[in-house]
Amino acid sequence: MDPATAAALGALIRRQRVAALATLRDGAPNVSLAAYLAAPDFQAFRIRISRLAWHTQDLRRDPTTALAIAETDDGRDDPQTLARVTLRGEATELRADDPAFAALRSGWLERFPQSAVTFELADFSFWSIAVRDARFVAGLGRTHDLSPADLAAVARDGR
Amino acid sequence: MDPATAAALGALIRRQRVAALATLRDGAPNVSLAAYLAAPDFQAFRIRISRLAWHTQDLRRDPTTALAIAETDDGRDDPQTLARVTLRGEATELRADDPAFAALRSGWLERFPQSAVTFELADFSFWSIAVRDARFVAGLGRTHDLSPADLAAVARDGR
Repeated sequence: MDPATAAALGALIRRQRVAALATLRDGAPNVSLAAYLAAPDFQAFRIRISRLAWHTQDLRRDPTTALAIAETDDGRDDPQTLARVTLRGEATELRADDPAFAALRSGWLERFPQSAVTFELADFSFWSIAVRDARFVAGLGRTHDLSPADLAAVARDGR
Repeated sequence: MDPATAAALGALIRRQRVAALATLRDGAPNVSLAAYLAAPDFQAFRIRISRLAWHTQDLRRDPTTALAIAETDDGRDDPQTLARVTLRGEATELRADDPAFAALRSGWLERFPQSAVTFELADFSFWSIAVRDARFVAGLGRTHDLSPADLAAVARDGR
C-alpha cells in the first residue's frame, strides 16, 4: 500500500467515531451502530455497549464480529467511491479491574464526554475487538487486504 | 410508534444513500458498504453489487442478511443518539429479465447517475432484500421493533 493510501486509512480510522458492528444472532447476520475508539496501534477497536442491547447479547454467545468504518457520505455523485474499511476479529469483554481499564476510560471520556453517565450504569461495559484481518476499499475497485501487521504499519506511518 | 417517530424513520430511509450490509462469510459476520434504494412500500431494499465483491459471494452462499442505515454523524456531542435502523431479511438476485428490472433500473439511475457504467459490466446485478423485521433506534434508549406491516405504514404515513 502506497504512503498516500496508508495515510487515507489512518485518517479514516482516526476521524470517524461510529462504526457498523456486525454480529451473529441466531445464526443470522445482525448489524447495528456503535461508537468506537481504536487502540493507538490499530490492533484492537474498543466499543462501549449495554448488556441490554442485541449486539451485546450476540457477542456473549459468539464473539466473532466485524466492524465497518466508512467515510461520511458528502453527497458526491457516486457514493460507491466512499472509502471504507472492514475489520474482522473477536470481541472480549473488558472487566473494570482489567489493567487497561483506567487508560481506556480516560481516552473514551476524552472522545465521548457525553458517555460519562454510562460509567454509573451497571449494564455498560467495554469490549475490545482484536483484529484478525482487514479489508480497505479506498474507492471503487481499490481494495487492499491487510493483516494486523499491515495495520500496525498504517498506525505508525499513516499520519 | 407516534407520527413524529414514524416520520423520522421515513425520512432516514429516504434521505440516506448507503447502508452497512452484513453477510455471513465462512460462518462469521462480514460487513461492507452498499448504496441502496428502498421500494416505495419499504418491503424490500435493493442493492447493486458486483459478483467479484465478498458480500456478493457471501449472499450467493447464504442469502440471510441485515442492513443498517444510520443518520450521518454531524459531530454532535453524543454519537450514540444518532438515529439508525436495522433491517433483517433475505436477499434474492434479480435477473435482467425480471418484470421489475426496467423500473428499478430507471429509479436506480435517477438516484445514482454515476452507476450507469455498471449496466455495461457483466459482473453487476441487482439484489432485492425482502425485509423480515426491523429495529429502529430513534435515539438512546428509544428502540422500536417493527414488522413489515409496520414498515408499510411508515412508508404510507411517515412523510
